[in-house]
Amino acid sequence: MRSAIRIGAFRGLPSLNSAPLRPGANGLRNHVPRRLLVPPSAALHSKSPDCSEALAPAAKLPEAESVPAVTPRERISIADIKERRAKAGRLIAPTAAYSDADMFKAPTTGKPKAKRWDHYLTEESLSREPCKLKQAAKHLKTPGLISLGGGLPCPEYFPISSLTLHVATPPDFSEAATLEGGGEDITIGKYDAGFSKPSTTSSPSTAPGTGEPKSEYDLSIALNYAQASGSAQMTRFVTEHVELVGVPPYADWRTCLTVGSTGALEQALRMLLRAGDTLVIEEFSFSTALETAAPLGVGFAGAPVDEEGLLPDGLDALLTGWDAAGRGRGGGRRKPHVLYTVPSGQNPTGATQSERRRRDIYEVARRHDLFIIEDEPYYYLQMHEGPAPPPRTVDDFLDRLIPTYLSMDVDGRVLRMDSFSKVVVPGSRMGWITAPEQIVERFIRHSEVANQGPSGFSQVILHKLLDERWGHEGYMRWLMNLRLEYTKRRDVMAAACDEFLPKEVVSWNPPKAGMFQWLKVNHELHPHASTKSILDMEEEIFDRCIAKGVLVARGSWFRAEQDKPPSGLYFRTTFAAASPDNMREAIRRLGEAIRESYRM
Amino acid sequence: MRSAIRIGAFRGLPSLNSAPLRPGANGLRNHVPRRLLVPPSAALHSKSPDCSEALAPAAKLPEAESVPAVTPRERISIADIKERRAKAGRLIAPTAAYSDADMFKAPTTGKPKAKRWDHYLTEESLSREPCKLKQAAKHLKTPGLISLGGGLPCPEYFPISSLTLHVATPPDFSEAATLEGGGEDITIGKYDAGFSKPSTTSSPSTAPGTGEPKSEYDLSIALNYAQASGSAQMTRFVTEHVELVGVPPYADWRTCLTVGSTGALEQALRMLLRAGDTLVIEEFSFSTALETAAPLGVGFAGAPVDEEGLLPDGLDALLTGWDAAGRGRGGGRRKPHVLYTVPSGQNPTGATQSERRRRDIYEVARRHDLFIIEDEPYYYLQMHEGPAPPPRTVDDFLDRLIPTYLSMDVDGRVLRMDSFSKVVVPGSRMGWITAPEQIVERFIRHSEVANQGPSGFSQVILHKLLDERWGHEGYMRWLMNLRLEYTKRRDVMAAACDEFLPKEVVSWNPPKAGMFQWLKVNHELHPHASTKSILDMEEEIFDRCIAKGVLVARGSWFRAEQDKPPSGLYFRTTFAAASPDNMREAIRRLGEAIRESYRM
Repeated sequence: MRSAIRIGAFRGLPSLNSAPLRPGANGLRNHVPRRLLVPPSAALHSKSPDCSEALAPAAKLPEAESVPAVTPRERISIADIKERRAKAGRLIAPTAAYSDADMFKAPTTGKPKAKRWDHYLTEESLSREPCKLKQAAKHLKTPGLISLGGGLPCPEYFPISSLTLHVATPPDFSEAATLEGGGEDITIGKYDAGFSKPSTTSSPSTAPGTGEPKSEYDLSIALNYAQASGSAQMTRFVTEHVELVGVPPYADWRTCLTVGSTGALEQALRMLLRAGDTLVIEEFSFSTALETAAPLGVGFAGAPVDEEGLLPDGLDALLTGWDAAGRGRGGGRRKPHVLYTVPSGQNPTGATQSERRRRDIYEVARRHDLFIIEDEPYYYLQMHEGPAPPPRTVDDFLDRLIPTYLSMDVDGRVLRMDSFSKVVVPGSRMGWITAPEQIVERFIRHSEVANQGPSGFSQVILHKLLDERWGHEGYMRWLMNLRLEYTKRRDVMAAACDEFLPKEVVSWNPPKAGMFQWLKVNHELHPHASTKSILDMEEEIFDRCIAKGVLVARGSWFRAEQDKPPSGLYFRTTFAAASPDNMREAIRRLGEAIRESYRM
Repeated sequence: MRSAIRIGAFRGLPSLNSAPLRPGANGLRNHVPRRLLVPPSAALHSKSPDCSEALAPAAKLPEAESVPAVTPRERISIADIKERRAKAGRLIAPTAAYSDADMFKAPTTGKPKAKRWDHYLTEESLSREPCKLKQAAKHLKTPGLISLGGGLPCPEYFPISSLTLHVATPPDFSEAATLEGGGEDITIGKYDAGFSKPSTTSSPSTAPGTGEPKSEYDLSIALNYAQASGSAQMTRFVTEHVELVGVPPYADWRTCLTVGSTGALEQALRMLLRAGDTLVIEEFSFSTALETAAPLGVGFAGAPVDEEGLLPDGLDALLTGWDAAGRGRGGGRRKPHVLYTVPSGQNPTGATQSERRRRDIYEVARRHDLFIIEDEPYYYLQMHEGPAPPPRTVDDFLDRLIPTYLSMDVDGRVLRMDSFSKVVVPGSRMGWITAPEQIVERFIRHSEVANQGPSGFSQVILHKLLDERWGHEGYMRWLMNLRLEYTKRRDVMAAACDEFLPKEVVSWNPPKAGMFQWLKVNHELHPHASTKSILDMEEEIFDRCIAKGVLVARGSWFRAEQDKPPSGLYFRTTFAAASPDNMREAIRRLGEAIRESYRM
């Protein structure tokens, strides 16, 4: 019924479909000795080619070992996590307490450590020193110590003494019910955790009948300064969440809260790329990601994609054929060493990489020693495809999710970015990364001076809702419900496209994840195809859309390589925001705009 | 009674006390024509000396005009602001609405525009392009338009339907009362502003009896994506707040919310300084500011200070004597063009610049075309000095505040950073900048890709409390109360120092603002003065302190120029955090540690 398209067919490079990927024979891990951190005065203030070269050796490919084709994804169960928490007892994490994922995750003994990335880290990242004032917090563990150290305001002067949230409840999390008599209240007090004392004589809140503090987290902690990596309370939650979805196969993985994936991406790019470097990216990519990297002096190499996203052979060819000497592709730039990809519900193409596709891409990454930034805001919005009923249990839901790059990352070459924006609220400005300890440690050093981690309001509110009230089970059920809601929305848009778009010129694949429908318009059939450029046609249709009352995103906004001529005419529409009726009407208007432009 | 000290006496430079500052005779403003933004492909991907030089002409000093010595600070009254709001009517600012300070501030007709800063902006900053997806929001104003553009989630899927804050109330804002039956509740609903509709059939919340929407801001707006400059609602509040304290004397000033001054500083530095540049800074400065700038390849020139902070003649001498040719101070680096200063309650010295001092420093900045980053987290914590009673009215309070650099900035050479961290809650991770439009516009372009502005939870909570409930009057009263609380705390610490510290070797000035007491210990009197280095003495005393149960900050952490030998032995203590009893006990322990080290 719908026309399947291959988006962005392989351009300008010889087909490598017949050349299978060649994993190296050498099984030794390519460990680089730990490089001493160079003090800023020595490292950063000189930008000589020598210094740069020392950090970026000529592209001599390490022989990669073969990734086991069917590594079973290792997941930890909710029951195991509950048991571990029960054994650990109450979390003692007062104001600005240090924490890391290792404090909360299951033992990883026997697993190898991640590869070292000293050869890719930038001078900026390598020269970061720990925040002296935050480091001094280690002395706070000394019993009886009084701190006149950090300038942390006394919580007595916080004008908010409690926050009460009214929230949706399982199993259906209905907004209507929550607004009209249903739902539940959660109250967060200032001194619920009992670490600080109020200025009054009244004692801190305790749970009824127990004499124990009411909670492990409260406003006196959350609203004060904290470690830039995030509160211990939320670090525990996201670390366990990663375990539920699939742990990396190496030992020293860590997590770190972020101010959303927007901030995480900028920090990651500054850590791994310097001016003059090239980032490999889907040939159509999230425009904000391009806008983040470009001012750093980073160029883009758009890798070809099909309806399953990145093409492994295309990626391999791009890298194998890279010409650092300056004549062909690459134009004298050093060979790319970082891949940025959105594997599920890619923005803007909506493409979702299958498990096989991910394993093949990972293999190419190993062969060329590519570091992978896995940006997964839409991961949990993997659509339900009938006719089988949707998963009933959390286990079944998790089993059916496409494995993450993180879960197959035997080397430790993946920095995964997760976000609460698309699945809880964008306004939390909060997410987290998961990556090898070395990478996370450098990332935190940057967070200390870039933002000091996410808002305490966001942290304590999401902690109370996701961890304390819903728990992992409840949060997974929220995600299970949300993906079904987005599946319904996608189906409304797909039906509207079927009904209103002229299939003679428009083709599309309903996406298997995410929020976006990518539409290819055959520019060769346009009545002015011989005289008008693709960009002019795009602009004309866009303007007609606005005149008719529909805003769509122009395909050209997302082109990785803006200096190349466009290969096709595309539009992106989202089914996230408008009501079903409005979505139908909007697609009808879009269809009309295209028909008019095509004189149909 | 207390020993007054001159901190960091003028080192290694000839005294210029006898050479008065020479304002230029030329009254013409030094307008640089607006430089076209260089596209990233052209500007950023080449780092040739030629290109750099084009952006940074050799340090030929513009002839500055004289700043009127007694410009009265221009303030706008609360009554004026109320009247303006009443005339403007209800603020219509739905999800992701664009706004800027010009929409909210009093007319500035007849005032000159700020100087242009093209010659100082970095390639990175100049090459930033507006976020395409956020720019598309302009079409949302088209009546009847349905957006399939940005991937904004539908608020139906926000699991929080209301937030209720329990807050302190004027006049005394007592925590005890707020915790025990006093205080007030503020509830923020999801659809209070009536722009979005709930999924149910029930209508949006309206104010009782009016049929009008209950509020101008709600969770459906605050928890969705927003403009990176901050919500219109909070932009209005901070813009008016700036007007209450003192407007800049030029026309095109703007505000922009930040993720706190931590993030604002990093963004400002990346906008103004490139690797190899030198930042002028107090000779003892906030260690995190040093840690922010150093990895960017920025060096530091520590300017001499006394108990009123920066010394104008010292600053002038430092710049006049700068040797860009490589032999003397400067060592071949280009002459500094940015000053970072904390004018009130400076961290760590506690020094507060008087109005006269600020005017003199500003004059030096004009003479050397220095751009000023004014970091003022402690501005409102200006202590009350008896015996006169504290101000009773908001007007009186505002009159007595030392004028800001912003309010005397005739050129538009100041970027001021304000923060809610020290005066409301650090966990808001929110503040704002005020600066010329050109600077703020470039800053916003960076915020779009660095963080997308502060958390929506922080914005809506602070808006409801500060704007909707307390209003400007109430917030000023909160600040008036807070400064008295900090004055009490400072007095407790000063008394404890008097009682417990050995005045034979320790000297200090009780600070006139902020959170910090800076202590100078006479290293020359140490029994091991001839054999031990200052850093070793410092470490020994610090370790004794920890052993005795008190954490203080070491003076050397704050030294701007770490490669020079230390000039003295210092410690910083804070009176912000500990209870009065603990503060006394902690200073007693510190005194003991010093006495033991000095064998007293």
